[in-house]
Amino acid sequence: MTAHRVARSWVPMPEDHPFGLQTLPFGSFAGPGGRPRVGVAIGDQVLDVSAAWPALAGCDEGLFATGRLERLLAAGPACWARTRQLLTRWLSEAGERERVAAYLSPASAHTMLLPFEVADYVDFYASEHHAANLGSMFRPGSEPLTPNWKHMPIGYHGRAGTIVVSGTPIVRPAGQRRAADGAVQVGPSTRLDIEAELGFVVGVPSGMGAPVPLDRFDQHVFGVCLVNDWSARDIQSWEYVPLGPFLGKSFATSISPWIVPLAALEHARVTPPPRTPRPPAYLNDAHQARWGLDVRLEVRLNGTKISEPCFADMYWTAAQQLAHMTVNGAGLRTGDLFASGTISGPTPRSRGSLIELTWNGAHPLQVAGGEERTFLEDGDEVIITATAPGPAATTVGLGEVTGRVVPAEAAVR
Amino acid sequence: MTAHRVARSWVPMPEDHPFGLQTLPFGSFAGPGGRPRVGVAIGDQVLDVSAAWPALAGCDEGLFATGRLERLLAAGPACWARTRQLLTRWLSEAGERERVAAYLSPASAHTMLLPFEVADYVDFYASEHHAANLGSMFRPGSEPLTPNWKHMPIGYHGRAGTIVVSGTPIVRPAGQRRAADGAVQVGPSTRLDIEAELGFVVGVPSGMGAPVPLDRFDQHVFGVCLVNDWSARDIQSWEYVPLGPFLGKSFATSISPWIVPLAALEHARVTPPPRTPRPPAYLNDAHQARWGLDVRLEVRLNGTKISEPCFADMYWTAAQQLAHMTVNGAGLRTGDLFASGTISGPTPRSRGSLIELTWNGAHPLQVAGGEERTFLEDGDEVIITATAPGPAATTVGLGEVTGRVVPAEAAVR
Repeated sequence: MTAHRVARSWVPMPEDHPFGLQTLPFGSFAGPGGRPRVGVAIGDQVLDVSAAWPALAGCDEGLFATGRLERLLAAGPACWARTRQLLTRWLSEAGERERVAAYLSPASAHTMLLPFEVADYVDFYASEHHAANLGSMFRPGSEPLTPNWKHMPIGYHGRAGTIVVSGTPIVRPAGQRRAADGAVQVGPSTRLDIEAELGFVVGVPSGMGAPVPLDRFDQHVFGVCLVNDWSARDIQSWEYVPLGPFLGKSFATSISPWIVPLAALEHARVTPPPRTPRPPAYLNDAHQARWGLDVRLEVRLNGTKISEPCFADMYWTAAQQLAHMTVNGAGLRTGDLFASGTISGPTPRSRGSLIELTWNGAHPLQVAGGEERTFLEDGDEVIITATAPGPAATTVGLGEVTGRVVPAEAAVR
Repeated sequence: MTAHRVARSWVPMPEDHPFGLQTLPFGSFAGPGGRPRVGVAIGDQVLDVSAAWPALAGCDEGLFATGRLERLLAAGPACWARTRQLLTRWLSEAGERERVAAYLSPASAHTMLLPFEVADYVDFYASEHHAANLGSMFRPGSEPLTPNWKHMPIGYHGRAGTIVVSGTPIVRPAGQRRAADGAVQVGPSTRLDIEAELGFVVGVPSGMGAPVPLDRFDQHVFGVCLVNDWSARDIQSWEYVPLGPFLGKSFATSISPWIVPLAALEHARVTPPPRTPRPPAYLNDAHQARWGLDVRLEVRLNGTKISEPCFADMYWTAAQQLAHMTVNGAGLRTGDLFASGTISGPTPRSRGSLIELTWNGAHPLQVAGGEERTFLEDGDEVIITATAPGPAATTVGLGEVTGRVVPAEAAVR
């Protein structure tokens, strides 16, 4: 009944297309001569914004000139809103069709690139179910949650230089592991896993010594992407005490090519789960910053759907993560990416990693072709997709992040 | 007796100056108009290489055009050697004096800048003495070294975006800590510490999926700097289980402004301590990669020398750290920085952090003005310097990294 309140695009697409006008995600694709260009996805088409902007916009001429997103990210909320408004007008008003259509081409014709240079990458651990599941597997006999877990969003820095765009092949990592008999072995990981996460892209920098409070979250964060935080569990479990995950994670992290602006997720905002005990004031969002998000993910392994995690189950919100990450005075840079940590819900069917889905390998999954999987085999392909509710019963799409495992290139001793 | 084998510079300086011809470190300073320029330190002077190169070098004209070191770093060992050779000729041959002297100015006249954009930052934990000291303080009742420690160089990723050049004021970080009675508190750190470290600067990138073996270390690493890895022990000890240090470190890390090429440290190479048990082949350097370094540090607090750590005591070498960091296929980027971890020797006088020097605050240090210190007070200044043996009884200087603590800017609740 409210469907008519939402403008429709003149670009032909089914009414329920996840990349309708309600979404308008930004990415970077390989344009003529192999040069990067900024694109906006609309239906199954891509609008070449790097080409269209200087010709049509009449403002911010250089905003997309580099073909990547850094300038837009740094430009801040007023510019983000103005840009979204202009794109909405271009793609909805019939009178704009003629001059705008010249900049459209099929998405399938393009190779997507890493949309921005990742500055610092932080990975959190914000699902209570995931933390408890992993705790009980990695530290049997101890309390599943560490004593600090409900007082702060636990996180760590990852390797920004090995973040890759969806579709990049994932070379099976090698490294040290400890066998059941205690012997130290070196070789390709035998417990290669995934972690289905949501990533948050920082646009506006903050100064060192100046924490970002909860209610300033949307003044700094531009939008979200999907993240597959590939994890070698055998390497990770041997190395991670006392300084945390390192080589078990740093070989590759995949992100989806389309960055969905926060503005597209207004209708997905929900109240996060209750926090007990009450966190300190800088993390206490009882009266503000309702940044739980009803984003629903699907994880497919070789075509078989193996999990349906929901981001609304996350204990800590991204606003709390940002407030925590900066409470010590650490500054933010344009292009910082922070990920939520594995999104796992309370049910077995909503767990976001194979180690949880198979309970440390004890219960293999059935996948396509009558095969079973505990951890990933060479050749396996993982696809994570997600959607969220948009205005007037529309669906906001987050696109997908995919990767196929290829064999370790050289045996390492 | 071998002193005459080493060329001397025509730049006036005492014979034992640590920035003689044997050193030739690269940095970046604020030039005319505030634009960065690459400089090389010679005695108490700086050679403006960004200006001199296009006029005098006759090759690689654009190498220093950006005023920062990234292009030199990426150019690789042959170019590094050619550049060093040319600079040595310019600064030693009398016939060059007239045309080169025009590009010299006193170092004291310049503001030094962060010499390159740090890509990824990794911090290791390579001193057995430090790891054992911290282990016995943070995990009393357990074995001081974790079971993995002698099998691999343990490390973690830090925050590249808060690496600052020497002299930058250090704002006291705030955050969560747990009081002795178990209560969670939030406020400025009361246990602010230092860590004296050596940093290694990656020049030549490596591909993802392509580990860098021990004997390729000097094909990728350009040089070294001093690092002060400021640490808030109260924040760190409460947050670090299970994912490692995060906000206890990420507020600031200081580096010295002058990057000393590996070529200047040839005479400082020594055999590292014996490794028992024998590490796996990819870390086993018995027949190669003798990258122990006789670099001697001095740490001063408010002018009082409080420690004299020696890098030769480190259990794991930087070559082993690089081989480990890439064994999983993680790629390197130009500008990656990896630090050794706190340099602590076997004696109380050679410990590289206050938490070790004061044994967790139990034994305060006497510093200037009749004062005592356990951890850092607002206004305290820390200076770390270092030297290494050069050819023919010369001394190679690593310059200094300094920082003064300033109060937390705003109370955080």
